[in-house]
Amino acid sequence: MKVLLKNCKLISMQEGREKIEDNVDILIEDSYIKNIQKNITDDEAQKVNLNGKVVMPGFINTHAHVPMSLFKESVDGYLLQDWLEKKIWPIEDKLTSDDIYKYSKITFDEMINTGTTCINDQYFNTEDIIKAANDKKIRIELTRTLMDSDGNGKQRLDELKYILDKYSDYNPNITFNVGVHGLYTSNEKYIKEVTDFARKNNLKIHMHFCENSKEVEDIKREYKVEYPAQVLEKYFRGIKLILAHCVKLTDEDIKILKELDVSVSHCPVSNLKLGCGVAPVQKLLDNDINVTLGTDGQGSGSNMDMFETMKFAALLQKGINENPLNMMAYDVIKLATINGAKALGKENEIGSIDINKKADLIAIDLESTCVNKPINDIFSTIVYNVKGINVQFLMTNGEILLNKI
Amino acid sequence: MKVLLKNCKLISMQEGREKIEDNVDILIEDSYIKNIQKNITDDEAQKVNLNGKVVMPGFINTHAHVPMSLFKESVDGYLLQDWLEKKIWPIEDKLTSDDIYKYSKITFDEMINTGTTCINDQYFNTEDIIKAANDKKIRIELTRTLMDSDGNGKQRLDELKYILDKYSDYNPNITFNVGVHGLYTSNEKYIKEVTDFARKNNLKIHMHFCENSKEVEDIKREYKVEYPAQVLEKYFRGIKLILAHCVKLTDEDIKILKELDVSVSHCPVSNLKLGCGVAPVQKLLDNDINVTLGTDGQGSGSNMDMFETMKFAALLQKGINENPLNMMAYDVIKLATINGAKALGKENEIGSIDINKKADLIAIDLESTCVNKPINDIFSTIVYNVKGINVQFLMTNGEILLNKI
Repeated sequence: MKVLLKNCKLISMQEGREKIEDNVDILIEDSYIKNIQKNITDDEAQKVNLNGKVVMPGFINTHAHVPMSLFKESVDGYLLQDWLEKKIWPIEDKLTSDDIYKYSKITFDEMINTGTTCINDQYFNTEDIIKAANDKKIRIELTRTLMDSDGNGKQRLDELKYILDKYSDYNPNITFNVGVHGLYTSNEKYIKEVTDFARKNNLKIHMHFCENSKEVEDIKREYKVEYPAQVLEKYFRGIKLILAHCVKLTDEDIKILKELDVSVSHCPVSNLKLGCGVAPVQKLLDNDINVTLGTDGQGSGSNMDMFETMKFAALLQKGINENPLNMMAYDVIKLATINGAKALGKENEIGSIDINKKADLIAIDLESTCVNKPINDIFSTIVYNVKGINVQFLMTNGEILLNKI
Repeated sequence: MKVLLKNCKLISMQEGREKIEDNVDILIEDSYIKNIQKNITDDEAQKVNLNGKVVMPGFINTHAHVPMSLFKESVDGYLLQDWLEKKIWPIEDKLTSDDIYKYSKITFDEMINTGTTCINDQYFNTEDIIKAANDKKIRIELTRTLMDSDGNGKQRLDELKYILDKYSDYNPNITFNVGVHGLYTSNEKYIKEVTDFARKNNLKIHMHFCENSKEVEDIKREYKVEYPAQVLEKYFRGIKLILAHCVKLTDEDIKILKELDVSVSHCPVSNLKLGCGVAPVQKLLDNDINVTLGTDGQGSGSNMDMFETMKFAALLQKGINENPLNMMAYDVIKLATINGAKALGKENEIGSIDINKKADLIAIDLESTCVNKPINDIFSTIVYNVKGINVQFLMTNGEILLNKI
C-alpha cells in the first residue's frame, strides 16, 4: 500500500528540519514514511493533493481516560470529591462492556477529528477499550488502572497481568504500561509490589501525581515524607515514568523529577476546571524535564482538542509568570508531538515527520476560517488560532482515518 | 420586514426567563422582537426553521481595536514595549484609509462568523471604521482614542468632536463614547479636559486601566497617588465608565470601582498573551461590579471568538482561585451578553432575547461536531465546548448577517 501526499507545507518537528518546507511531497509505503522531497512521482501510489495545506505530526495526548466522554460537562458546580461521589462513581459502577466500547469510540472519533493520532490512556474495562481502539485504528498505550484504597489492589494487578498476557502481541499500535492511579490511592506495600512488577517486566508507569494540594497532604501523611517525590526516589528508580498533572510541586520535587528523568503530562484545562491550579511548566522546562500535553478525561478536560490544550499551556505560562517570552509557539508544538513520543519511548517511531518514521500525521487548512486571517506567523497561528475542526486529513500508521480534502 | 424563527431552543438571558425554552418561535418585525411563543404563524414573515438549534443573544465584545486584525500573531517572542516599537507603531504610522477599512471588515466578518453582534472599539482613523461597520451592518460603539503623551492631545480631541458632530445621527447602530487610551498616556491637565468634555456631553468613557504592573507604577508616579483608582475618584465621578483589563487592582482600587459603578471589560486571552497576569474577576463579581468580556485587538487577543473568551474567563477563575465552584456556566454567559449591554447602557435594547428588545441574536448547532457529544449540560457545553465555528445564524438589529442553516 503506497500513499503519495502532494504539495504539502511541511512542519516536520524533527530536529534538524525546523524550517517550514514548502511544496514538498511525502511518499508513504505501508506504515512508513519512505521519501520527502519535491516532485515525487510514483505510479502505484494513491495520490492525495494537499494543495499547500500544513502537514504536521499527529498529536500525542499523554493523559486521558478514554471512556469518560460519557461525563462531558457534568462537573460545573461540584467540588471534586462531590463530583466523584455523586456523579462519577455511581454511574461508573453500572457501566457495561457495551457502554465502555461506545464511549471509547466517541472519544476516538473526537481524537481523529481534532488531529490526535496517539493517546496514553488510564481506565478499567481495558478489553473493551482495546476493542474500540482496534476498530478505530488509532495508536494507543493503555493499562488497567491500579489502586489499593479499597484493598482490591491484588485483583486489579491480576487483571493487568491477564491483559498483558492476552494482548501484548495483538496489534502493534496497541501497547501497554502499568497505570497506577496515584500514590494517595495506594500504600507503601502496594507501591513496592507494582513498581517491582513494572521493573521486572520493563514496563513504564503512568501515574497521577500532585494534582492538587489535598493529594500532596495525603501522600505526605501516608508515606511519612516531607514532599511527594521522595516516594518516587525510594521506589520508582529505573522505571520510565509518565506523571500526569504535577501541579503542586516544590523545588525539591522538581529536582528529583529531573534526576529520575520522568516525563510530565501537563493537563492545563482539566487542572483549571477542577480548581487545582497551574503546573509550574516553565520551571520544569527550565530544568530540562520532558513536558508533554494531555487533555485528561472529558469530564474535567471537556474535549480532546490538543490545539486548545496547546493554547492554554502557552498562555498560562506567559500570563502567570508575567513573561510573554515564555513558551514560543514552535516549542509548544513540540510538547504536543515529539515530547509526547519521548514520554512513551516511541521517539524513533512517531512524534515527527521524517524518513523511516511511522506515518502518523495530519493536514490542516489555515485558510478556511476567517479567524486565521491574515497569517503573519504559521507556528503562532497553529497554537493560537487553529482549532481541531481545521484538521482535514489524518493518517495513523499509514492508514487514512480522516479525509475531508 | 418580518422574520419568523421556528423551533428554537431559546436561552433568553433575560432576568425571569432563565430556563431553556424548548421549541419556541420568535417573531421579529423590523429590528424588534415582537413575539416569543410556541406555534406562531404569520403569512407575511420570512421563515427560518432553526430545527431545535440553540438561540441566544449575540455576544457583546466590550473591548477591541477593530483594525488590528492586521497584527494577528505578530507578538510571540516580543516584550510588549518591543512589540509596539518594532512591529506595531512603524506599521500603524503608514496605514492608509483603505488599510483601516479593509482590516476592519476582516474583523467584522470574524465577529459575525463567531457570534458577536455588538462591539466596543477604540482606535483612530474612526471614519474608515464607521464606513466598514456601516457596510457590514454590525452594531458598534466607537471613538477616536485620546492620549497626550506626545503633546498632540488637543488635536485628537478635536478629531473626536468632528466625528461626533458628523456621525452622531448617521446610523442608529453606530454610537460613540470618549475613548481615553489610559491614564499613563495622558496627564492630569488632559484628563481634566477630557472628563469635563465627557460629563458635559453625557458620554461614556472607555479606557485601558491597570493592564500590567508597569502601568500602575507609571500612574502612581504621574498622578502622585497611592493607587490608580484615586485618579478615577478625583476626575471621573458622574461619568459612565468602561475600564478594560483591570488586571492589577488592589482592594482599595476595587472599593472605588464599586463606588463609581464602573463596568470592567475583562480580556483574559490578551492579558495572558502579553504576560500581564490574571484579573481578579471573582473578587470583582463578589463586590457586585459589572464584569463584561472583551477580546482586545487580535494582535494580543488572537481572534474575536467570544466562546473562547468565556472559556478562558471561567477556567482562570476556577483554577487560579482553586475553587471549581467559581464562575458557573450560566453566569459566564451573562458576562458575554447582558452585562456587556449594561456596560454600554443598552440593557433595555440588547443583551437578552425578550419581547420589545432589538433582535441581536445567534443560533448555534450543538450537534454538528463530535466534540460536543454527549451533551450533559447545555450551558456548560456552550462555555466549554462550543466554538465560533458552530454559529450557524446571526442577526443584528433584525437583519440576517449570517445564515448557514
